[in-house]
Amino acid sequence: MKSFNVRLSEIIKVKKSHLCVGLDINPERLNATSSSLDDLKAHTFRVIDATRDLVAAYKPNLAFFERWGSPGYQWLEETMDYFDNDVVIIGDAKRGDIGNTAKQYAKSIFDHFGFDAVTLSPYMGQDSITPFTEAPEKGAFILCRTSNPSAIDLQSLPTGKGLLFDKIAQLAVQWNQNDNVGLVVGATSPEEISRVRGNAPGLPFLIPGIGAQGGDLTKSMIDGNIDGIALINVSRSISFAGDLSKSAIRNAAQDYVNKMRDLMYES
Amino acid sequence: MKSFNVRLSEIIKVKKSHLCVGLDINPERLNATSSSLDDLKAHTFRVIDATRDLVAAYKPNLAFFERWGSPGYQWLEETMDYFDNDVVIIGDAKRGDIGNTAKQYAKSIFDHFGFDAVTLSPYMGQDSITPFTEAPEKGAFILCRTSNPSAIDLQSLPTGKGLLFDKIAQLAVQWNQNDNVGLVVGATSPEEISRVRGNAPGLPFLIPGIGAQGGDLTKSMIDGNIDGIALINVSRSISFAGDLSKSAIRNAAQDYVNKMRDLMYES
Repeated sequence: MKSFNVRLSEIIKVKKSHLCVGLDINPERLNATSSSLDDLKAHTFRVIDATRDLVAAYKPNLAFFERWGSPGYQWLEETMDYFDNDVVIIGDAKRGDIGNTAKQYAKSIFDHFGFDAVTLSPYMGQDSITPFTEAPEKGAFILCRTSNPSAIDLQSLPTGKGLLFDKIAQLAVQWNQNDNVGLVVGATSPEEISRVRGNAPGLPFLIPGIGAQGGDLTKSMIDGNIDGIALINVSRSISFAGDLSKSAIRNAAQDYVNKMRDLMYES
Repeated sequence: MKSFNVRLSEIIKVKKSHLCVGLDINPERLNATSSSLDDLKAHTFRVIDATRDLVAAYKPNLAFFERWGSPGYQWLEETMDYFDNDVVIIGDAKRGDIGNTAKQYAKSIFDHFGFDAVTLSPYMGQDSITPFTEAPEKGAFILCRTSNPSAIDLQSLPTGKGLLFDKIAQLAVQWNQNDNVGLVVGATSPEEISRVRGNAPGLPFLIPGIGAQGGDLTKSMIDGNIDGIALINVSRSISFAGDLSKSAIRNAAQDYVNKMRDLMYES
Protein backbone atom coordinates (compact mmCIF):
# COMPACT_ATOMS: atom_id res chain seq x y z
CA MET A 1 0.00 0.00 0.00
CA LYS A 2 1.21 3.52 -0.83
CA SER A 3 2.42 5.75 1.96
CA PHE A 4 0.25 8.77 2.77
CA ASN A 5 2.89 11.22 1.53
CA VAL A 6 3.23 9.44 -1.83
CA ARG A 7 -0.55 9.26 -2.28
CA LEU A 8 -0.99 12.96 -1.43
CA SER A 9 1.71 13.94 -3.90
CA GLU A 10 0.15 11.83 -6.66
CA ILE A 11 -3.33 13.25 -6.11
CA ILE A 12 -1.99 16.81 -6.29
CA LYS A 13 -0.27 15.99 -9.61
CA VAL A 14 -3.21 14.14 -11.15
CA LYS A 15 -5.77 16.80 -10.22
CA LYS A 16 -3.34 19.67 -10.87
CA SER A 17 -4.62 21.17 -7.65
CA HIS A 18 -2.99 22.15 -4.38
CA LEU A 19 -6.33 23.21 -2.93
CA CYS A 20 -7.69 21.85 0.33
CA VAL A 21 -11.17 23.07 1.22
CA GLY A 22 -11.73 23.40 4.95
CA LEU A 23 -15.20 22.53 6.18
CA ASP A 24 -15.94 24.82 9.14
CA ILE A 25 -19.70 25.17 8.78
CA ASN A 26 -21.52 27.19 11.44
CA PRO A 27 -24.98 28.77 11.52
CA GLU A 28 -23.62 32.26 12.24
CA ARG A 29 -22.14 32.27 8.73
CA LEU A 30 -25.18 30.92 6.94
CA ASN A 31 -26.91 34.33 7.10
CA ALA A 32 -29.98 32.68 8.49
CA THR A 33 -31.78 33.84 11.58
CA SER A 34 -31.97 30.23 12.69
CA SER A 35 -30.23 27.35 10.97
CA SER A 36 -31.05 23.78 11.78
CA LEU A 37 -28.52 20.97 11.65
CA ASP A 38 -30.24 19.93 8.41
CA ASP A 39 -29.38 23.33 6.90
CA LEU A 40 -25.75 22.93 7.96
CA LYS A 41 -25.68 19.44 6.45
CA ALA A 42 -27.22 20.64 3.19
CA HIS A 43 -24.65 23.42 2.97
CA THR A 44 -21.79 20.98 3.63
CA PHE A 45 -22.97 18.78 0.75
CA ARG A 46 -23.37 21.89 -1.43
CA VAL A 47 -19.72 22.85 -0.80
CA ILE A 48 -18.54 19.33 -1.63
CA ASP A 49 -20.69 19.09 -4.79
CA ALA A 50 -19.43 22.49 -5.95
CA THR A 51 -15.76 21.61 -5.60
CA ARG A 52 -15.29 17.83 -6.08
CA ASP A 53 -13.20 18.03 -9.26
CA LEU A 54 -11.21 21.08 -8.15
CA VAL A 55 -9.67 19.95 -4.90
CA ALA A 56 -6.86 17.67 -3.77
CA ALA A 57 -8.20 17.49 -0.23
CA TYR A 58 -10.97 18.38 2.18
CA LYS A 59 -10.39 19.26 5.81
CA PRO A 60 -13.45 18.90 8.05
CA ASN A 61 -12.82 20.70 11.33
CA LEU A 62 -14.06 18.45 14.13
CA ALA A 63 -14.92 21.35 16.44
CA PHE A 64 -17.75 22.52 14.18
CA PHE A 65 -19.36 19.07 14.32
CA GLU A 66 -18.61 18.36 17.99
CA ARG A 67 -20.34 21.60 18.94
CA TRP A 68 -23.66 19.79 18.42
CA GLY A 69 -22.72 16.63 20.31
CA SER A 70 -23.90 13.25 19.00
CA PRO A 71 -26.15 14.69 16.23
CA GLY A 72 -23.15 16.74 15.08
CA TYR A 73 -20.99 13.64 14.89
CA GLN A 74 -23.75 11.93 12.90
CA TRP A 75 -23.53 14.84 10.45
CA LEU A 76 -19.76 14.23 10.27
CA GLU A 77 -20.35 10.51 9.62
CA GLU A 78 -22.71 11.36 6.76
CA THR A 79 -20.21 13.90 5.42
CA MET A 80 -17.45 11.26 5.38
CA ASP A 81 -19.70 9.04 3.24
CA TYR A 82 -20.26 11.90 0.81
CA PHE A 83 -16.63 12.32 -0.32
CA ASP A 84 -15.10 10.74 -3.43
CA ASN A 85 -12.09 8.43 -3.25
CA ASP A 86 -9.76 10.58 -5.37
CA VAL A 87 -9.19 13.16 -2.64
CA VAL A 88 -7.46 13.13 0.72
CA ILE A 89 -9.67 13.76 3.76
CA ILE A 90 -7.88 15.41 6.66
CA GLY A 91 -9.47 15.41 10.11
CA ASP A 92 -8.62 18.80 11.59
CA ALA A 93 -8.61 17.67 15.20
CA LYS A 94 -5.33 18.97 16.67
CA ARG A 95 -5.28 16.09 19.14
CA GLY A 96 -2.36 15.36 21.45
CA ASP A 97 -2.50 13.08 24.49
CA ILE A 98 -0.65 10.26 26.28
CA GLY A 99 -0.15 7.07 24.25
CA ASN A 100 -3.05 5.14 25.78
CA THR A 101 -5.45 7.98 24.91
CA ALA A 102 -3.86 8.77 21.54
CA LYS A 103 -4.64 5.18 20.52
CA GLN A 104 -8.34 5.85 21.14
CA TYR A 105 -8.24 9.04 19.06
CA ALA A 106 -6.49 7.14 16.26
CA LYS A 107 -9.29 4.56 16.37
CA SER A 108 -11.82 7.40 16.20
CA ILE A 109 -10.25 9.36 13.39
CA PHE A 110 -8.87 6.60 11.18
CA ASP A 111 -10.99 3.53 11.95
CA HIS A 112 -14.38 4.95 12.88
CA PHE A 113 -14.60 8.11 10.75
CA GLY A 114 -12.20 6.91 8.04
CA PHE A 115 -10.05 10.03 7.66
CA ASP A 116 -6.84 9.69 5.61
CA ALA A 117 -4.91 12.08 7.84
CA VAL A 118 -5.15 14.12 11.03
CA THR A 119 -3.72 17.32 12.49
CA LEU A 120 -1.84 16.88 15.79
CA SER A 121 -0.40 19.10 18.50
CA PRO A 122 3.21 18.25 19.42
CA TYR A 123 3.20 19.57 23.01
CA MET A 124 3.25 16.10 24.62
CA GLY A 125 6.05 14.72 22.44
CA GLN A 126 6.67 11.58 20.41
CA ASP A 127 4.54 9.05 22.28
CA SER A 128 1.49 11.26 21.63
CA ILE A 129 2.22 11.12 17.87
CA THR A 130 3.24 7.47 17.28
CA PRO A 131 -0.25 5.88 17.49
CA PHE A 132 -1.23 8.01 14.46
CA THR A 133 1.83 7.20 12.32
CA GLU A 134 2.00 3.42 12.65
CA ALA A 135 -0.02 2.78 9.47
CA PRO A 136 1.98 4.23 6.52
CA GLU A 137 -1.19 4.94 4.51
CA LYS A 138 -2.53 7.27 7.21
CA GLY A 139 -0.97 10.73 7.59
CA ALA A 140 -0.27 13.13 10.46
CA PHE A 141 0.23 16.89 10.02
CA ILE A 142 1.94 18.25 13.11
CA LEU A 143 1.39 21.84 14.24
CA CYS A 144 4.64 23.71 13.65
CA ARG A 145 4.13 27.45 13.01
CA THR A 146 0.40 28.14 13.17
CA SER A 147 -1.57 30.93 11.53
CA ASN A 148 -3.09 32.63 14.59
CA PRO A 149 -1.83 35.88 16.16
CA SER A 150 -0.83 34.17 19.45
CA ALA A 151 1.22 31.49 17.67
CA ILE A 152 4.37 33.34 18.75
CA ASP A 153 3.58 32.97 22.49
CA LEU A 154 5.28 29.55 22.49
CA GLN A 155 6.29 28.68 18.95
CA SER A 156 8.78 31.52 18.56
CA LEU A 157 10.52 31.05 21.91
CA PRO A 158 14.27 30.54 21.61
CA THR A 159 15.28 26.99 22.62
CA GLY A 160 19.05 27.06 22.41
CA LYS A 161 19.42 26.10 18.77
CA GLY A 162 16.75 28.06 16.91
CA LEU A 163 13.14 28.64 17.89
CA LEU A 164 10.61 26.13 19.20
CA PHE A 165 8.98 25.70 15.78
CA ASP A 166 12.42 24.97 14.25
CA LYS A 167 12.77 22.18 16.79
CA ILE A 168 9.31 20.81 15.92
CA ALA A 169 10.22 20.70 12.23
CA GLN A 170 13.40 18.77 13.09
CA LEU A 171 11.50 16.37 15.36
CA ALA A 172 8.89 15.77 12.66
CA VAL A 173 11.67 14.65 10.29
CA GLN A 174 12.82 12.15 12.95
CA TRP A 175 9.26 10.98 13.54
CA ASN A 176 8.67 10.45 9.80
CA GLN A 177 9.70 6.78 9.77
CA ASN A 178 6.76 5.68 7.60
CA ASP A 179 6.68 8.51 5.03
CA ASN A 180 3.43 9.85 6.44
CA VAL A 181 4.32 12.91 8.55
CA GLY A 182 3.71 16.49 7.43
CA LEU A 183 3.67 19.93 9.05
CA VAL A 184 1.13 22.71 9.56
CA VAL A 185 2.71 26.05 8.62
CA GLY A 186 0.53 29.17 8.50
CA ALA A 187 0.34 31.43 5.45
CA THR A 188 0.05 34.42 7.78
CA SER A 189 3.80 34.27 8.53
CA PRO A 190 4.99 33.63 4.96
CA GLU A 191 8.60 34.47 5.70
CA GLU A 192 8.73 31.44 7.95
CA ILE A 193 7.63 28.88 5.35
CA SER A 194 11.15 28.75 3.84
CA ARG A 195 12.61 28.54 7.29
CA VAL A 196 10.50 25.50 8.17
CA ARG A 197 11.28 23.99 4.76
CA GLY A 198 15.00 24.32 5.55
CA ASN A 199 14.48 22.19 8.65
CA ALA A 200 12.12 19.69 7.03
CA PRO A 201 12.97 19.11 3.36
CA GLY A 202 10.58 16.70 1.67
CA LEU A 203 7.79 16.82 4.26
CA PRO A 204 4.38 17.89 2.94
CA PHE A 205 3.06 21.17 4.32
CA LEU A 206 -0.54 21.91 5.13
CA ILE A 207 -0.79 25.70 4.87
CA PRO A 208 -3.87 27.32 6.45
CA GLY A 209 -4.52 31.03 6.85
CA ILE A 210 -5.41 31.95 3.25
CA GLY A 211 -8.62 33.91 2.83
CA ALA A 212 -10.38 35.10 6.00
CA GLN A 213 -7.11 35.06 7.96
CA GLY A 214 -5.30 37.16 5.32
CA GLY A 215 -2.32 34.90 4.49
CA ASP A 216 -0.04 35.27 1.45
CA LEU A 217 -1.07 32.84 -1.32
CA THR A 218 1.79 33.52 -3.74
CA LYS A 219 4.56 33.12 -1.20
CA SER A 220 2.88 30.07 0.35
CA MET A 221 2.62 28.33 -3.02
CA ILE A 222 6.11 29.19 -4.24
CA ASP A 223 8.08 28.69 -1.03
CA GLY A 224 5.95 25.77 0.15
CA ASN A 225 6.48 23.79 -3.07
CA ILE A 226 10.27 24.00 -3.13
CA ASP A 227 11.84 20.75 -1.85
CA GLY A 228 8.44 19.25 -1.10
CA ILE A 229 4.76 19.89 -1.68
CA ALA A 230 2.30 22.27 -0.09
CA LEU A 231 -1.42 21.83 0.28
CA ILE A 232 -3.13 25.23 0.58
CA ASN A 233 -6.18 25.27 2.81
CA VAL A 234 -9.01 27.75 2.28
CA SER A 235 -12.10 27.48 4.47
CA ARG A 236 -14.46 30.42 4.92
CA SER A 237 -13.65 32.31 1.67
CA ILE A 238 -14.79 29.27 -0.30
CA SER A 239 -17.48 27.63 1.80
CA PHE A 240 -19.22 30.94 2.53
CA ALA A 241 -18.44 32.69 -0.76
CA GLY A 242 -20.78 35.32 -2.24
CA ASP A 243 -24.45 34.48 -1.93
CA LEU A 244 -23.61 30.99 -0.58
CA SER A 245 -24.92 29.35 -3.76
CA LYS A 246 -23.25 26.38 -5.40
CA SER A 247 -22.04 28.57 -8.26
CA ALA A 248 -20.60 31.25 -5.95
CA ILE A 249 -18.75 28.53 -4.03
CA ARG A 250 -17.48 26.92 -7.23
CA ASN A 251 -16.33 30.26 -8.66
CA ALA A 252 -14.37 31.05 -5.50
CA ALA A 253 -12.69 27.62 -5.53
CA GLN A 254 -11.98 27.83 -9.28
CA ASP A 255 -10.43 31.25 -8.78
CA TYR A 256 -8.04 29.91 -6.13
CA VAL A 257 -7.16 26.90 -8.28
CA ASN A 258 -6.47 29.13 -11.31
CA LYS A 259 -4.18 31.36 -9.26
CA MET A 260 -2.30 28.33 -7.95
CA ARG A 261 -2.02 26.77 -11.43
CA ASP A 262 -0.66 30.05 -12.80
CA LEU A 263 1.99 30.06 -10.10
CA MET A 264 2.96 26.39 -10.51
CA TYR A 265 2.53 25.69 -14.19
CA GLU A 266 3.17 29.05 -15.88
CA SER A 267 4.80 28.59 -19.25
CA MET B 1 -21.63 33.43 40.48
CA LYS B 2 -18.56 31.77 42.04
CA SER B 3 -15.41 31.48 39.99
CA PHE B 4 -14.39 27.96 38.99
CA ASN B 5 -11.30 28.02 41.20
CA VAL B 6 -13.31 29.06 44.28
CA ARG B 7 -15.96 26.41 43.61
CA LEU B 8 -13.34 23.67 43.15
CA SER B 9 -11.62 24.64 46.36
CA GLU B 10 -14.91 24.63 48.31
CA ILE B 11 -15.94 21.22 46.98
CA ILE B 12 -12.57 19.73 47.97
CA LYS B 13 -13.01 21.12 51.50
CA VAL B 14 -16.64 20.07 51.93
CA LYS B 15 -16.10 16.54 50.64
CA LYS B 16 -12.67 16.24 52.29
CA SER B 17 -11.50 14.68 49.07
CA HIS B 18 -8.85 15.59 46.53
CA LEU B 19 -9.80 12.63 44.36
CA CYS B 20 -10.72 13.00 40.70
CA VAL B 21 -11.80 9.77 39.03
CA GLY B 22 -10.89 9.60 35.36
CA LEU B 23 -13.38 7.85 33.12
CA ASP B 24 -11.38 6.12 30.37
CA ILE B 25 -13.62 3.13 29.70
CA ASN B 26 -12.57 0.79 26.90
CA PRO B 27 -13.63 -2.78 26.04
CA GLU B 28 -10.05 -4.11 26.17
CA ARG B 29 -10.09 -3.47 29.93
CA LEU B 30 -13.49 -4.97 30.62
CA ASN B 31 -12.09 -8.50 30.41
CA ALA B 32 -14.87 -9.44 28.01
CA THR B 33 -14.28 -11.13 24.70
CA SER B 34 -16.68 -8.67 23.16
CA SER B 35 -18.13 -5.65 24.93
CA SER B 36 -21.00 -3.68 23.47
CA LEU B 37 -21.44 0.03 23.96
CA ASP B 38 -24.18 -0.89 26.45
CA ASP B 39 -21.64 -2.81 28.52
CA LEU B 40 -19.31 0.22 28.50
CA LYS B 41 -22.18 2.48 29.51
CA ALA B 42 -23.23 0.15 32.34
CA HIS B 43 -19.65 0.06 33.61
CA THR B 44 -19.40 3.87 33.48
CA PHE B 45 -22.53 4.17 35.63
CA ARG B 46 -21.16 1.48 37.98
CA VAL B 47 -17.97 3.53 38.52
CA ILE B 48 -19.99 6.68 39.20
CA ASP B 49 -22.41 4.92 41.59
CA ALA B 50 -19.51 3.34 43.47
CA THR B 51 -17.70 6.63 44.05
CA ARG B 52 -20.26 9.50 44.17
CA ASP B 53 -19.68 10.46 47.80
CA LEU B 54 -15.92 9.94 47.70
CA VAL B 55 -14.82 12.23 44.89
CA ALA B 56 -14.35 15.95 44.32
CA ALA B 57 -14.34 15.55 40.55
CA TYR B 58 -14.79 13.24 37.58
CA LYS B 59 -12.77 13.50 34.40
CA PRO B 60 -14.35 11.82 31.38
CA ASN B 61 -11.73 11.45 28.65
CA LEU B 62 -13.36 12.45 25.37
CA ALA B 63 -11.16 10.13 23.28
CA PHE B 64 -12.76 7.03 24.77
CA PHE B 65 -16.23 8.25 23.76
CA GLU B 66 -15.24 9.74 20.39
CA ARG B 67 -13.73 6.39 19.40
CA TRP B 68 -17.29 5.16 18.74
CA GLY B 69 -18.44 8.23 16.82
CA SER B 70 -21.97 9.54 17.31
CA PRO B 71 -23.17 6.59 19.49
CA GLY B 72 -20.09 7.21 21.67
CA TYR B 73 -21.00 10.86 22.09
CA GLN B 74 -24.54 9.79 23.00
CA TRP B 75 -23.00 7.66 25.75
CA LEU B 76 -21.09 10.78 26.90
CA GLU B 77 -24.32 12.82 26.90
CA GLU B 78 -26.02 10.17 29.06
CA THR B 79 -22.98 10.07 31.34
CA MET B 80 -23.13 13.85 31.85
CA ASP B 81 -26.75 13.49 32.97
CA TYR B 82 -25.74 10.83 35.49
CA PHE B 83 -23.45 13.01 37.63
CA ASP B 84 -24.49 14.81 40.81
CA ASN B 85 -24.15 18.57 41.20
CA ASP B 86 -21.77 18.52 44.16
CA VAL B 87 -18.77 17.51 42.04
CA VAL B 88 -16.74 19.18 39.32
CA ILE B 89 -16.84 17.53 35.88
CA ILE B 90 -13.70 18.04 33.82
CA GLY B 91 -13.75 17.32 30.09
CA ASP B 92 -10.35 15.82 29.34
CA ALA B 93 -10.14 17.03 25.76
CA LYS B 94 -6.70 18.69 25.44
CA ARG B 95 -8.06 20.99 22.76
CA GLY B 96 -6.06 23.88 21.29
CA ASP B 97 -6.94 25.71 18.07
CA ILE B 98 -7.30 29.20 16.55
CA GLY B 99 -9.84 31.51 18.21
CA ASN B 100 -12.64 30.90 15.72
CA THR B 101 -12.37 27.13 16.22
CA ALA B 102 -11.74 27.32 19.96
CA LYS B 103 -15.11 29.09 20.27
CA GLN B 104 -16.80 26.05 18.73
CA TYR B 105 -15.02 23.69 21.13
CA ALA B 106 -16.06 25.90 24.06
CA LYS B 107 -19.67 25.67 22.85
CA SER B 108 -19.29 21.89 22.64
CA ILE B 109 -17.67 21.31 25.99
CA PHE B 110 -19.38 23.93 28.15
CA ASP B 111 -22.73 24.60 26.44
CA HIS B 112 -23.60 21.30 24.79
CA PHE B 113 -22.08 18.73 27.14
CA GLY B 114 -22.17 20.93 30.24
CA PHE B 115 -18.67 20.29 31.60
CA ASP B 116 -17.45 22.56 34.40
CA ALA B 117 -13.87 22.61 33.11
CA VAL B 118 -11.67 21.42 30.26
CA THR B 119 -8.04 20.45 29.68
CA LEU B 120 -6.24 22.51 27.01
CA SER B 121 -2.97 22.37 25.11
CA PRO B 122 -1.03 25.67 25.13
CA TYR B 123 0.92 25.19 21.87
CA MET B 124 -1.08 27.80 19.93
CA GLY B 125 -0.92 30.50 22.62
CA GLN B 126 -3.33 32.83 24.35
CA ASP B 127 -6.00 33.26 21.66
CA SER B 128 -6.52 29.47 21.69
CA ILE B 129 -7.22 29.63 25.46
CA THR B 130 -9.35 32.78 25.85
CA PRO B 131 -12.64 31.38 24.48
CA PHE B 132 -12.59 28.85 27.35
CA THR B 133 -11.84 31.34 30.15
CA GLU B 134 -14.34 34.09 29.42
CA ALA B 135 -16.97 32.70 31.81
CA PRO B 136 -15.49 32.77 35.35
CA GLU B 137 -17.57 29.76 36.48
CA LYS B 138 -15.98 27.52 33.80
CA GLY B 139 -12.40 26.33 34.31
CA ALA B 140 -9.43 25.54 32.06
CA PHE B 141 -6.54 23.27 33.08
CA ILE B 142 -3.61 23.95 30.78
CA LEU B 143 -1.06 21.24 30.00
CA CYS B 144 2.19 22.23 31.71
CA ARG B 145 4.36 19.23 32.64
CA THR B 146 2.54 16.11 31.50
CA SER B 147 2.83 12.57 32.87
CA ASN B 148 3.93 10.69 29.73
CA PRO B 149 7.53 9.58 29.01
CA SER B 150 7.87 11.88 25.94
CA ALA B 151 6.74 14.96 27.88
CA ILE B 152 10.37 16.08 27.97
CA ASP B 153 10.65 16.24 24.14
CA LEU B 154 9.28 19.80 24.18
CA GLN B 155 8.30 20.68 27.73
CA SER B 156 11.82 20.48 29.16
CA LEU B 157 13.53 22.47 26.40
CA PRO B 158 15.47 25.50 27.68
CA THR B 159 13.84 28.77 26.56
CA GLY B 160 16.23 31.40 27.82
CA LYS B 161 14.76 31.86 31.30
CA GLY B 162 13.91 28.37 32.54
CA LEU B 163 12.35 25.49 30.67
CA LEU B 164 9.30 25.56 28.39
CA PHE B 165 7.00 24.26 31.14
CA ASP B 166 8.22 27.03 33.47
CA LYS B 167 7.15 29.51 30.81
CA ILE B 168 3.72 27.85 30.50
CA ALA B 169 3.19 28.13 34.26
CA GLN B 170 4.06 31.84 34.09
CA LEU B 171 1.76 32.41 31.09
CA ALA B 172 -1.09 30.60 32.87
CA VAL B 173 -0.80 33.06 35.75
CA GLN B 174 -1.12 35.94 33.24
CA TRP B 175 -4.07 34.24 31.54
CA ASN B 176 -5.86 33.73 34.88
CA GLN B 177 -7.84 36.98 34.74
CA ASN B 178 -11.12 35.35 35.85
CA ASP B 179 -9.87 33.03 38.61
CA ASN B 180 -10.57 29.94 36.51
CA VAL B 181 -7.21 28.76 35.14
CA GLY B 182 -5.32 25.72 36.47
CA LEU B 183 -2.42 23.55 35.34
CA VAL B 184 -1.90 19.88 34.49
CA VAL B 185 1.23 18.62 36.23
CA GLY B 186 2.07 14.91 36.12
CA ALA B 187 2.70 12.85 39.25
CA THR B 188 5.32 10.88 37.32
CA SER B 189 7.80 13.76 37.66
CA PRO B 190 7.10 14.62 41.31
CA GLU B 191 10.22 16.74 41.74
CA GLU B 192 8.72 19.18 39.24
CA ILE B 193 5.46 19.82 41.10
CA SER B 194 7.19 22.24 43.51
CA ARG B 195 8.96 23.86 40.60
CA VAL B 196 5.66 24.53 38.80
CA ARG B 197 4.12 25.73 42.07
CA GLY B 198 6.94 28.26 42.39
CA ASN B 199 5.94 29.73 39.05
CA ALA B 200 2.20 29.55 39.62
CA PRO B 201 1.30 30.10 43.27
CA GLY B 202 -2.44 29.81 43.90
CA LEU B 203 -3.40 28.05 40.68
CA PRO B 204 -5.16 24.70 41.10
CA PHE B 205 -3.27 21.67 39.82
CA LEU B 206 -4.79 18.67 38.13
CA ILE B 207 -2.30 15.88 38.78
CA PRO B 208 -2.64 12.76 36.61
CA GLY B 209 -0.29 9.80 36.51
CA ILE B 210 -1.19 8.09 39.80
CA GLY B 211 -1.94 4.37 39.53
CA ALA B 212 -1.32 2.70 36.16
CA GLN B 213 1.29 5.32 35.22
CA GLY B 214 3.21 4.86 38.49
CA GLY B 215 3.24 8.44 39.86
CA ASP B 216 4.09 9.45 43.42
CA LEU B 217 0.91 10.04 45.48
CA THR B 218 2.54 11.32 48.67
CA LYS B 219 4.74 13.90 47.01
CA SER B 220 1.91 14.97 44.66
CA MET B 221 -0.45 15.56 47.59
CA ILE B 222 2.04 17.32 49.83
CA ASP B 223 3.83 19.48 47.26
CA GLY B 224 0.71 20.10 45.17
CA ASN B 225 -1.27 21.43 48.15
CA ILE B 226 1.26 23.99 49.29
CA ASP B 227 0.28 27.52 48.12
CA GLY B 228 -2.73 26.18 46.25
CA ILE B 229 -4.79 23.04 45.84
CA ALA B 230 -4.19 19.84 43.95
CA LEU B 231 -6.76 17.51 42.49
CA ILE B 232 -5.33 14.01 42.15
CA ASN B 233 -6.62 12.05 39.17
CA VAL B 234 -6.78 8.26 39.21
CA SER B 235 -8.31 6.49 36.22
CA ARG B 236 -7.58 2.85 35.49
CA SER B 237 -6.63 1.74 39.02
CA ILE B 238 -10.09 2.75 40.21
CA SER B 239 -12.40 2.20 37.25
CA PHE B 240 -10.91 -1.23 36.49
CA ALA B 241 -10.09 -2.27 40.05
CA GLY B 242 -10.09 -5.93 41.11
CA ASP B 243 -12.96 -7.98 39.71
CA LEU B 244 -14.54 -4.80 38.23
CA SER B 245 -17.45 -5.03 40.68
CA LYS B 246 -18.98 -2.00 42.35
CA SER B 247 -17.44 -2.97 45.67
CA ALA B 248 -13.96 -3.48 44.21
CA ILE B 249 -14.18 -0.04 42.56
CA ARG B 250 -15.44 1.57 45.76
CA ASN B 251 -12.71 -0.08 47.85
CA ALA B 252 -10.02 1.19 45.49
CA ALA B 253 -11.42 4.72 45.59
CA GLN B 254 -11.86 4.63 49.38
CA ASP B 255 -8.28 3.46 49.74
CA TYR B 256 -6.98 6.43 47.73
CA VAL B 257 -9.17 8.87 49.66
CA ASN B 258 -8.00 7.44 53.00
CA LYS B 259 -4.36 7.84 51.98
CA MET B 260 -4.97 11.42 50.90
CA ARG B 261 -6.90 12.27 54.09
CA ASP B 262 -4.07 10.81 56.18
CA LEU B 263 -1.61 13.07 54.37
CA MET B 264 -3.75 16.21 54.60
CA TYR B 265 -5.58 15.93 57.87
CA GLU B 266 -3.25 13.88 60.09
CA SER B 267 -3.53 14.90 63.71
